[in-house]
This record gives sequence, structure tokens and C-alpha cells, in this order.
Amino acid sequence: MPEATANAERMEGLLAEFRRIRAFSEQLCEPLAIEDYGLQTTVEASPPKWHLAHVSWFYETFLLGPFLPGYRPFHPRFDHLFNSYYEQTGSGLWPRAERGLLSRPTVAEVYDYRHHVDTAMERLAAEAPAADWPTIAERFSIGLNHEQQHQELLITDIKRHFAHNPLRPAYRADLPCAPPSVPEPMRWQTFEGGLVEIGASGEGFAYDNERPRHRVYLEPFALADRPVTNGELLEFIADGGYANPALWLSDGWAEVQQRGWRCPLYWEQQDGEWSIMTLAGMRPLNPAEPACHLSYYEADAFATWAGKRLPTEIEWEHAAGNRPVTGNFLETGWLHPRPADEEPAGLRQLFGDVWEWTGSAYLGYPGYRAASGALGEYNGKFMCNQMILRGGSCASARDHLRASYRNFFYPHERWQFMGLRLAGDA
Amino acid sequence: MPEATANAERMEGLLAEFRRIRAFSEQLCEPLAIEDYGLQTTVEASPPKWHLAHVSWFYETFLLGPFLPGYRPFHPRFDHLFNSYYEQTGSGLWPRAERGLLSRPTVAEVYDYRHHVDTAMERLAAEAPAADWPTIAERFSIGLNHEQQHQELLITDIKRHFAHNPLRPAYRADLPCAPPSVPEPMRWQTFEGGLVEIGASGEGFAYDNERPRHRVYLEPFALADRPVTNGELLEFIADGGYANPALWLSDGWAEVQQRGWRCPLYWEQQDGEWSIMTLAGMRPLNPAEPACHLSYYEADAFATWAGKRLPTEIEWEHAAGNRPVTGNFLETGWLHPRPADEEPAGLRQLFGDVWEWTGSAYLGYPGYRAASGALGEYNGKFMCNQMILRGGSCASARDHLRASYRNFFYPHERWQFMGLRLAGDA
Amino acid sequence: MPEATANAERMEGLLAEFRRIRAFSEQLCEPLAIEDYGLQTTVEASPPKWHLAHVSWFYETFLLGPFLPGYRPFHPRFDHLFNSYYEQTGSGLWPRAERGLLSRPTVAEVYDYRHHVDTAMERLAAEAPAADWPTIAERFSIGLNHEQQHQELLITDIKRHFAHNPLRPAYRADLPCAPPSVPEPMRWQTFEGGLVEIGASGEGFAYDNERPRHRVYLEPFALADRPVTNGELLEFIADGGYANPALWLSDGWAEVQQRGWRCPLYWEQQDGEWSIMTLAGMRPLNPAEPACHLSYYEADAFATWAGKRLPTEIEWEHAAGNRPVTGNFLETGWLHPRPADEEPAGLRQLFGDVWEWTGSAYLGYPGYRAASGALGEYNGKFMCNQMILRGGSCASARDHLRASYRNFFYPHERWQFMGLRLAGDA
Amino acid sequence: MPEATANAERMEGLLAEFRRIRAFSEQLCEPLAIEDYGLQTTVEASPPKWHLAHVSWFYETFLLGPFLPGYRPFHPRFDHLFNSYYEQTGSGLWPRAERGLLSRPTVAEVYDYRHHVDTAMERLAAEAPAADWPTIAERFSIGLNHEQQHQELLITDIKRHFAHNPLRPAYRADLPCAPPSVPEPMRWQTFEGGLVEIGASGEGFAYDNERPRHRVYLEPFALADRPVTNGELLEFIADGGYANPALWLSDGWAEVQQRGWRCPLYWEQQDGEWSIMTLAGMRPLNPAEPACHLSYYEADAFATWAGKRLPTEIEWEHAAGNRPVTGNFLETGWLHPRPADEEPAGLRQLFGDVWEWTGSAYLGYPGYRAASGALGEYNGKFMCNQMILRGGSCASARDHLRASYRNFFYPHERWQFMGLRLAGDA
Repeated sequence: MPEATANAERMEGLLAEFRRIRAFSEQLCEPLAIEDYGLQTTVEASPPKWHLAHVSWFYETFLLGPFLPGYRPFHPRFDHLFNSYYEQTGSGLWPRAERGLLSRPTVAEVYDYRHHVDTAMERLAAEAPAADWPTIAERFSIGLNHEQQHQELLITDIKRHFAHNPLRPAYRADLPCAPPSVPEPMRWQTFEGGLVEIGASGEGFAYDNERPRHRVYLEPFALADRPVTNGELLEFIADGGYANPALWLSDGWAEVQQRGWRCPLYWEQQDGEWSIMTLAGMRPLNPAEPACHLSYYEADAFATWAGKRLPTEIEWEHAAGNRPVTGNFLETGWLHPRPADEEPAGLRQLFGDVWEWTGSAYLGYPGYRAASGALGEYNGKFMCNQMILRGGSCASARDHLRASYRNFFYPHERWQFMGLRLAGDA
Repeated sequence: MPEATANAERMEGLLAEFRRIRAFSEQLCEPLAIEDYGLQTTVEASPPKWHLAHVSWFYETFLLGPFLPGYRPFHPRFDHLFNSYYEQTGSGLWPRAERGLLSRPTVAEVYDYRHHVDTAMERLAAEAPAADWPTIAERFSIGLNHEQQHQELLITDIKRHFAHNPLRPAYRADLPCAPPSVPEPMRWQTFEGGLVEIGASGEGFAYDNERPRHRVYLEPFALADRPVTNGELLEFIADGGYANPALWLSDGWAEVQQRGWRCPLYWEQQDGEWSIMTLAGMRPLNPAEPACHLSYYEADAFATWAGKRLPTEIEWEHAAGNRPVTGNFLETGWLHPRPADEEPAGLRQLFGDVWEWTGSAYLGYPGYRAASGALGEYNGKFMCNQMILRGGSCASARDHLRASYRNFFYPHERWQFMGLRLAGDA
Repeated sequence: MPEATANAERMEGLLAEFRRIRAFSEQLCEPLAIEDYGLQTTVEASPPKWHLAHVSWFYETFLLGPFLPGYRPFHPRFDHLFNSYYEQTGSGLWPRAERGLLSRPTVAEVYDYRHHVDTAMERLAAEAPAADWPTIAERFSIGLNHEQQHQELLITDIKRHFAHNPLRPAYRADLPCAPPSVPEPMRWQTFEGGLVEIGASGEGFAYDNERPRHRVYLEPFALADRPVTNGELLEFIADGGYANPALWLSDGWAEVQQRGWRCPLYWEQQDGEWSIMTLAGMRPLNPAEPACHLSYYEADAFATWAGKRLPTEIEWEHAAGNRPVTGNFLETGWLHPRPADEEPAGLRQLFGDVWEWTGSAYLGYPGYRAASGALGEYNGKFMCNQMILRGGSCASARDHLRASYRNFFYPHERWQFMGLRLAGDA
Repeated sequence: MPEATANAERMEGLLAEFRRIRAFSEQLCEPLAIEDYGLQTTVEASPPKWHLAHVSWFYETFLLGPFLPGYRPFHPRFDHLFNSYYEQTGSGLWPRAERGLLSRPTVAEVYDYRHHVDTAMERLAAEAPAADWPTIAERFSIGLNHEQQHQELLITDIKRHFAHNPLRPAYRADLPCAPPSVPEPMRWQTFEGGLVEIGASGEGFAYDNERPRHRVYLEPFALADRPVTNGELLEFIADGGYANPALWLSDGWAEVQQRGWRCPLYWEQQDGEWSIMTLAGMRPLNPAEPACHLSYYEADAFATWAGKRLPTEIEWEHAAGNRPVTGNFLETGWLHPRPADEEPAGLRQLFGDVWEWTGSAYLGYPGYRAASGALGEYNGKFMCNQMILRGGSCASARDHLRASYRNFFYPHERWQFMGLRLAGDA
């Protein structure tokens, strides 16, 4: 196949993905009222409107500006308003904590912005010179994955914002829901370890922080066959887990005291009964569901209490390596973790449901080098103070995930769909 | 006239006022986009939606609940969400700093709330037992004046929120505007002083903090015939006024340094040219307009620089006592201070244009006692740490003002239409 | 008497005062360990070492530098380290919050500094040209009164610092102490009011803020014959005073909640028994003693609870005008307020024991103008946000006080010996 | 040798060490004035007095209380005042930020406390039952190493406190000092990597966090033969390193902006000349000395600027594994890093001079488990948010160090003697 044809086919494939992903972002916003689009209840979580605009800014900045001849940005200040953290683009950054303080542009104007970018991206695919195609295709893939990341953030941020409202509104009151049940006991699977390989291999899209694939020496270890459940967390609470400093990391205990943590985020107790905030509003707590919205500190304290530990990201990836990426994802449409299926023995829920905190700090792999220029800021500059999570959640797009995927958050953060799986020494 | 007829007439008068004022609040919001209604860019200024709901809550709490038999509140949690600061109502207070973090109730729901209250108020007027009429009438008047205060806040808060947006949107781009001009020199009027009386007399509505009318001994004094202008403030800036601690109160100087003040709020300098944010968007600074959006600290420093002082509220009221309440008010529709008219000699712009900081602390008059119950919290509990302003502004309703009216703000606050008039010892 | 002789006599009188006051400052520090001299446990209260140095800096800056030919400052950076708040001296200010972060100069070096200044002041008195004597004498008086103010601060600050230590050390364990007793009921004295005069008259030393003496119109009023006692404050506490927002100013209630106030400063409750920290260490609370270490907010809330109010400073001064300045002062050596003597009817404890909060804001009197230059910063720049206290305390030097003396503190401050006397409308 | 004799010999050996180390701590304090002992200028650094007491508390809590029959603590509240961070001892913790707010106990009392503990430790060695000896000996070793750690902190904290004083006092003005010189170029040594072992082996004292010794797979790498020098850091500064966000980790750049970092801690520039604060006071900057008092963020940014990276702790330990622990330590008496000796090719200054930041997060080794009880809090609970440093500094006791020693600090911290050595991929 001649290169031009190959480019055209690849381009067509990317455009099809682009249309699908762009439409899905907007579909996710359909249940929102206009008033919801601008809401920012905490510095960590952005307004829906900002997400919709920011992902468009990303294409504009890294593709349309550099590669589409004669492209005119939709608005001269949007590079300032909708840049998230790229210091090297030269536009400056509207402060992250103030994303909710902008009633203008309006929602309608942001949709206009999106469609302006959509049209230009079609033109880019049609008109870009062949010489630019390798760079364009690479950045195009990054842009699509980037928008998928923000789809997850859209969902988690909306949940965060709605949970702050004392009326506890529902994003969608009609979401499906598993009946309360009792989780079956945790079982364990052991691994021999030895000299193993982890990291992304050459094929398929992967972020730079998943590379290079490299060898690591692993001691034997064991993994629980499913994540920790709400029921198990209730036992931790009943045993005084949140009041016992012996279980906690020092920084974690400081956090517990300063923030008054007594349970995971979104749990509420009234008259002795626990309920939790979901995207469908308040629901009774289901003991069989994976425990969710836990900080790293809580995950670590729970593991200590249980006489276990968190897996390293190497153990996790080694265990997950060849398994299919199946589970409860964003497309599943539950937007909430589900109880484990009763399957034959084996690791369950590795992918989807809840991100699993690992005991690994987010650092570069041996030989890692960040890309040069502003795009190099995508992942590399965050390699400090954050911990790795693996596996994706019920708010992650399925085709955005893979075994080598490295998610990372600060250890005090809880608003993502975060849980844990126990590990032990074999 | 029999009492029943008198009551009915008074009731009809209040209802007419009520309909007019309620409609005017909504009319003030017409230029807003839905997105603007929920915006809170600083803890001092509330979202438009909150104002619309809070003034309705006021009628609900102090009139409909106690006096309309069978009244059902529109929503069981609105007493919590829309109570401003009344500790004694028992509902608790949604935190003032988080009024902008509520996307629900939606704007449409808030308008429904208003109309629910409107209907109930008509019923109250028709059905309330005669025995309750004195109390109802008194509270009705307070409610109307209260809504007028919030009309001014609506305008000042919208200006504050819009000015925070780097796009500097206009609330109404079509507002009238005076051509730039040079102010004529300040002239002085002297007063003899002696034993004078200030405070509200028995007739007409007045807040409790304007009473009792009482005697005060005044030394001779002089007042400038108009407020300080932008042109005069430019001289202060050019003379290094913002960099000279000798001019400032100690707390003022701390504020200047901590907040980096170099000019009044809403002033911006680019390439040597000054412009100011208005409700019509950015405009070139007009030297003839009254200087506005100054803190007490700036007003005091300016007066010190000018070798003068601020008037006391007693001097101000004594000077304003018998003059008609005319000037540039909310109804005038400029929503911005105007240059002084060239009138025959005499005090100009006492009412309207800009509130005038006085050198008087906000304290109770001799014999003042706050009312009992939650309504007693309206004015009395703020009698500490705030300074008195007099005269009203271009954002005040005309029939809300009078010579004895006492407005009060913290000395660092600038977002109201605040200016100053110089005084001196005669 | 020729002027030279008059000057020499006046000079000799000032020098005698100087020697006495300087020695007394050092005598007050005798009970301290070296370790105590550098302590600063809160930004409001300074280390003893700093006080000893600062009062010396005052003479150096305002007298020795300008008037003693060839005077060499003791150390080139002490003007920076020991300037309290005079912006116009040009030396800059070591941050107030960091006065306790300087272990050097050592205590011995600070005493050397004092004696260097002492010697130079003797030289100044001997050598200054006659033409400078009026200014020198005026500043000399200010310097002496200034050092007396810092003697009171020395005592109040030491108490504050020692109370922060969980060992609750005593400054002097051998201080006298009144046996616990029950206070007799409060009685009232009424005043007719009318056109009265307050403020310092021409004779004797007074600060600029006590002038000019001027006329004020007073309504009839009544004053309690003694300050509020600990026993009465216990009733306020027992009645839920600290938990009832209806009693508090808005800013006061915010303070109560933020700081968790449940009683006056230095009160502690253990197993139901109250004790208080004194300069002699912990002692059981004596119900008959004047209540002390109350903020303005607490004083105001107590008065509201009692159905009374605080006096204005005008009422206080009018009542105190012709009475002798007698009472429990710094020289008395109790360093703690004492129960009221059982005297014949009349106002008791106006002077000494506890400063009495008034309901008057600290503002300039009619015609007040601050002096020019750095000395003008002494009083005038604080005329905002503070409230007036009258009468002096058990930590004030007796000859530092007079009926027109105006003390002022922020309404949240409690670490001075502050109490209250009730007032009412007659 | 019978066990009793072996115990007695071991005991005698520990006692000899104890006497030496205890005396050395006090010797380090000899240059201090009484005023210096209580100083705390930042929450990270403690007062000398606190260090002297805390290390004594450690013996009291973990040895004398549990194992010396009839031991009476020196003071009933010292467990509260001098516990650093052990939550499980039950005494509560005097707040770390307020260690400088205690003038009592006095310095003399703290020395009495030390000698009380010294005497009791001698008794413990003489009287403890044989059955307790294994535990006692283990804790005794920890106690000795603990006091050595605090000797280093004594020195680094004194430097921090003195540098805060604008007089820049010297701890000891007579310290030796290398003449300014130009560093020779950096050379590189390469390592093959492969499956290597790191961690403490069974012999000799090591902290729990150095265990277990375990296998790790290492890629080939290269290490610079000496730490980065002041001269090289000047180049980084001259090239705009502190102003270029492209070089910095995201959290590091936030720190640079918030704290206004423009150079390492203790550097000062006046009239274009750089000088640095040392324990001998201010000195001209010597380009040949190892750069010191750098945060992890600065170390990482420098490495990025240089096109290199920081070594991992595994690389560092592998390279240092068999080398003798020689260099510039606390006992050397310079108390400042020295220029590298001109030696034959090879790695220089691995031990002593400056701690070297590694790119490794502080986490437990495979199989690590913290000890149970309060002593388990010594190291394990800090395994989050901190980065590893290796090699010791000019303020570390020589016999306190070894190749497997893991030091750890937060990435923003700079007050230890911290520098860096570059690494690269071979």
C-alpha cells in the first residue's frame, strides 16, 4: 500500500474516532442544566464547561495552530482561559482555582467553539501536507486519549460538584443499580515473581510514561481476587480504624485529623444507617460493592489493619499482563462500581469498577525521557508526590485502558473512583 | 375613616409597592445569561440567583410563616440555603462563601419560588386577621426596603463578578455615558454647628439604627460642595499617594501592602492610559466623574493628603437635613456616577452617584435598642468594625434613601459605589 | 526665675523621673530567667528583651540622634530590630511576628544597650543647647510615658507567654492574693448629662489623642458602682452565654466559633472547678474579683445578656472627671485585680484593677490633628477598628494614668487586664 | 564465652558509646548562648534545648520506663513536651510548631534532666535482668543512633535559626575554611548493572528501613565522580534556571513561584557578589564547594538543565557498596562541605560533605514490615511523599553512616546539608 493511501486510511480511522469521541463528550453532558456547566466546588475538580472547552483547546494548540495553514483561533483569549497547565505555550494560565468564576463564555459559546474546532479538524485531515502526517497522527492520538481522560473527569467532577449541594441532586436518576448483597470472602492468587518485563511495548497507543518496557526483578507475591468491599470497610470503621494512629502513615494521620475523615468520601450516616452519594443521588450503601472514593492514606491504613499491603504497580501489571480488558466501564452506563460477579476462581475486576491504589510512587521508568516542548509537560512534570493507580474505573472509557496504563493522583485525593486490592508476600 | 378601611388602604398601598419592587428586581436581571445567575467571585458579593431567592425567603420567614394560616414553604431546605445571617431562625446558614457553589435550584426554580411567594403575599394581604396588621405592616415595609437594598447589591455584585472575568463582559452595553471633561474646582460651604438634632423622626419608614432622633453638639465645620473626582485621585496617585505610609491609617497601610493596591478598584492602566470597568464594560477614565470604589482607607488617606478630613456622619446629616432627595439613582439608569452638574453655588450630589464615607464608626445612637427576635439581627449586630457611609449611590433606589439613612461597610471594602466628600474645620 | 534656671530644674526633674522609670523596668524583669527574655508566644505580645530594647531605641531615635551632638548609635542595625511601627524613620521594621526569633543580641547585650542610652541621656540633659529644650522636654515626657506603657506590656506579655507553657510557670510565686469571697450586689449611680466637656486640658502631660478638650452633649445615664465580677461571669456562662448567638455582635460570634471561646482568657475548668492563670501561677477562681481578660465582644455580649450596655468613653470620663487617681496599680504589687473594697456608696475601682471597655470606637476628637513626622504615628494612625478602654489596670503605673487617658485595642483582644463596667440609660 | 559475660561485654561497649555520644551532644552546644537554646525559627527545625531533652526522653520512654525497675521519670510532663511524633506512647504531643514557645524548663533544668537519665542508664546497664538484654541492647543501639541523628539536626537547625537573624551571628567564628578555587571538570564512571543486591545485611546496626537485603535488576548507568558544585549552580542561575518552568517538576515550579526562590537556601547576592551563610557566619561563595541546601526540586531541575538525571538510590548504593566510609563528617569539624580533593580517578565524596538527593521515593523494601508498638513509628510511617538521600554530610557522625543508610526528606526541604550528584544512562 502506498504511503499516501496508508496515511489516508489512518487519517480516516482517526477522524472516525474523533467524531465518536467528540459526540460522546457532548452526550455525557446532556443530563446537565445550563447552571451545572460552570460549577467548581473544589480546586481539584473543574466545571463541565471548562472540560468541553479545554479538550478543544488541546487540538487547537497542538494540531490546528501548528499544522492547519491559515487557522484562526476561535477567540483570542481562549488559549489563556482553557490552558490547563502547559507553561511553555506562552499564553499564561487562568488560575485553576478560578475556573468556576467565569460565567462567560456561555455554554452555547463553548459548544460553538467545539464545533469550530470540529470543522477545522476535518479540514486538517483533508488538507495537511503528507510530510506532517507522522507528527499529526501521533498528536491526534494523544488528543483523542486526552479527551477520553477528560470524559472520566467530567463524570467524577460532576459527582463531586453535585455531592456538595445539600439537595444532593442526581445527574441521572435512572441509572441501574445492584441490589444490596453480602460479598463472598476474599481469595488469594499467588505469583512466582522473578525477572519480569513491564511497560508498554511498541504496538498501539501508550503514553510516554508507560515506556520504555523494561525488566524488573520481582519477589514472589499474592494478590486478592477482588477489590476490598464496602462491607470490609465497615468492619474497619467499626474497629476504630479512623481513630487509631497506629494504622496510618504520618501524613495520612495528619490528613485524618485536619479534615475530620471518619469514612470514605460520599458516605453519610444518619440514624445509624449508611448511605452514599452516587450519580443517581443518594442510595443505601451496598456491602458487596467495591469500596470507592478512598485516598491512598485510607487504602494504606486499611491494608495495614488487614495485615496486608498494597501491591506495587509492577506486581499489578505483571498479574494483569495478558488478561482481556473487560469489566464495568464508562460505556457500561452504570457509572458506579458493581459487586464482583461470581466467577470461577481467578482475579476479578482488575479492569473497570475502581482504580486500584498501588504502593508505587509515580516516577519515570529507567530510560524515561519526557518529550521536548509543551507536550512534554503532559506527564513528566508530575513525577513527584503522587502515587500510581491501575486498572481503570466505571468512569473510564474501555478502549482508553490497557495493562500498562499508569494513572496517578496525590495521596490525599478521593474524588476519583478509587479503591484498593490487597496484596501480600507469597 | 374606620380602622378596617384604613388597614385595607394601607394594605393596598403596600401591595402596590410590593408588585412594583418585585417586578423591578426581575427587570434588573433581564440582561443576564443563565450562566451569570449563579456566579460568586468573592465572598462579599452574592450570586444574582441568591439575591432573588433570599429576598423571597425574607417574606416567607418573617411574614408568610408567622401570619398566613396554612402557608407551606416552597421547599423544605430553602430556609437553610437562602438565610443570609439570621442565627435565631433555627435553620442554620449555608456558608456565605459557598453561595456560588449551588447550581441547583436552577434559575427557573428560583423564579417559581418568587412567584409562589408573590401569590402568597397577595393572599396574606387579603386574609390576614386585623389584629396582626400593625406587625404585618411594619414587617412588610422592612421587607420592601430589604428587597431594595438587595437591588443595589444585585447591581454592585454583578459588576464585581463581571470585572473578575478577563473578557470584561458588559451587563448592558447600551448604558448612557458622560463625555470626558475636566472637573471645576472644589468649593466650600461652612456650617456654624451648635446643639443640633439628627436621626429619624417619627414619620415615614426608617430603620431602627436611624433612631432615636437625638441632640448632638457640633463644632463649626466646612463641607466640599461635591465629591472628590477621578481627576483629583489621579493627582494623589501621581504624587505617590499609594506608596507613602505617612498618609495612611496603620490598618490601611497593611491592606495596601498585602493586596498590592495601586489605584481604586476597577481602574486599569495600560500603556499609560487609565480605563475603568463599568456595567457597560471597559471605558476610558473620565476625570470629572466622582471617584468611586474606594475603601475607607483610601478615602482617609486622600483626605490626609489633601490636608482635610472626612466629615462625621453628624456633620453630613446636619448639612443634608432639609434638602430634597434628588440625584443620579438606580432608576436614572446610568448605573455609574456622573460628573457634577454646573449648578449655582451649594452642595451638590449629596444624594446618589456615590456613597460618601464618613469618619464615624457604625455604633448605636444614644438610647438605641435592637428589636427582639431574629429581626433584631437586621442592623444591630453589625455595630462594630464598620464605618458609616451616607447619601446613596447611582445603584440605590431613590425612594429607599433619606437624610438619616446610615449605610455601613468594613473599611477595606470597595465594591460598592463608594466615594468621599472632603470636610474641614471651619 | 530666669529661663536657664527653669530649664535646668525641669531637666533635673525629667532626669529624676527617667532614672526611676528606667530602673523600674529592669526591676520588673528581675524574676525572669534568661530563657524568658526572648519569648514570643503570640504576635500581639512581644518578648521582654524586645521591650527593654525598644524603649531605649525610642530615646535614641527621637532624642539622642536629633539632639545630642556626635551621638553614635549603640549598634547600626538596632534601629531596624527595635523599631515597633514607625514607618517614617526610614529604617524598616523587623516583622512584629518575628520578634521572638532573635536569640541575639543577648540579654546582656540589651542591658548594655540600655546603659549606653542611659549615659547618653544624662549627657543630653547636661549638654543640649537651650534652644532645643522645649522640643526635648516634650519628647522626653513622651519617652517616659512610652516606657511606662511598655512596663504594663511587659507584665501582660509575660503573663501571656507563661500561660502558653503547659507547666504554667509563675513569674513571682510570692504575690499577695485575696481570699475567695462573694461579691456584694451591683449598685447604680445616675448622671444628669447635658452639655459637658471632656478631653485633656492644658496642664500636665497628655497624649495628643486626649486633645482638644471639647464640648459634648450627653443624655442622662447610669453607671454601675463597680466592674463586673467573676461570679457574674460564671452566671453568664451557666446561662449558655457563650453558646447563644442572640447575645453577640456578628463579628464577635464569628470569633467565638472560630476560636472556640467558652470562657475568658486564662480560665480553665477541671472536674467542674474553675481556676485561672495569674502571674503567680494557677489559682482557684475568686468570684469577687473583677472579671478580667475579656474581649470587647465578650464585654458587649455580657452587657446585652444583663439587659444593659457598655458606657461610652464620654460617659466614663464625665463620671471620673474630678475623682482622685487611686486604686490597685502596678506599684501596688499585686499584679492582679482585687475585689472591690466595701466602701460607702459611690463609684469604686474606676482607676486600676481592670481597664474598662467602653462602647466608643477609637477616633480623633473634633479638631484633632496628628503631629507631623514619625512621632505623629504614635497614636493617630490607629484610629480605626479599635475600641476605647478607660481607667487603667493593676499593671498600669499610677502616675501614667488620668481621667482623660484613652487606651485602645482591637475588639478581639483579651491579653491585657481588660474588664467592663455596666451602664444604662437613666 | 558464657552468655552473662557476653552480655556484660556488650553492655560495657554500649555504655562506652553512650558516654561518648552523650558528651558529644553537649560539646556541640558549648558555643551557644543561653538565649540560643530555645530558638525555633521554622517548624521544621527544633530548638537546641528540645533536641537535648528529646533524645533523653527517648531512652526514658523505650528503655528506662519499661526495663529499669522503679524508675521515676524526671518530670511528669516531659513525656508530653519532648515526644517528637510517637502517637502510641499515649502522652500526646506538644505541637511541633510550638517547640520554641517554651522558656521553661530552663537550659539548666534540661541538663539536669540529661544527667538524671545518664545516671539511670548506668543503673540499667548494671541492674537489668539478663532476660531483657536482647531487647535492651537492640533499643540501646537505636537510642544511640537516634541521638547521633539529632546531633546532625542540632547543627543544621542552629544554622537555620542563626541565618534567620539579620545580624547573621556565627555559631563558631573559628571554623576552618577552604580558599576559593575553580572546580575541575566533572568526570563519569559507568556501571554495568544487572541483577544486584542492596539493603543492609545481617551484621552491624541498621535501621529497619534498610532491610531486607534484596535483589534488584539494574540497567547500565553512569555516575558523576563528584557532587555538583557552586560554580555549576551559578551557571544554572545565569542561564535563567530559576525562571524557566520547562526545567521544573510541576510541584517544584509552584514552590519556586510561591516562595520566590532565586538561589539555594543561605545564598545572598549584594552588589553582584554572592556570599553564603555558614556556621562561621557569612563567607564569600566558593565555586569549588559542593552546592548545598538545595531542595529536591532544585536538584531535579538542575539535572534536567544539565541533560542528566538524579541517580536512583539503588544505583547509588550499588556504586557505593564496598567503599570505605571516609570523608568530611561532623567529627572533621569543618561543618561545611569542602571542595573535592584532587584524587586519582574514581568516585569522590560519596560519603560526607553533602547528602545526595536520589530520584527514588522513600518506600518500604520488598518484605519490609515496621516493628509493632511505638518504636515501629520510627521510620515506617514516613514512607510517603518523601525522597531518599544518600551518603551523609559534613554534619553527620561518621560511624552513624553506611552504604545502605537511607535518609529521607520532603522534596521542598532545604535546610539539611543537601546537594546532588548527576547520573545518566550508560
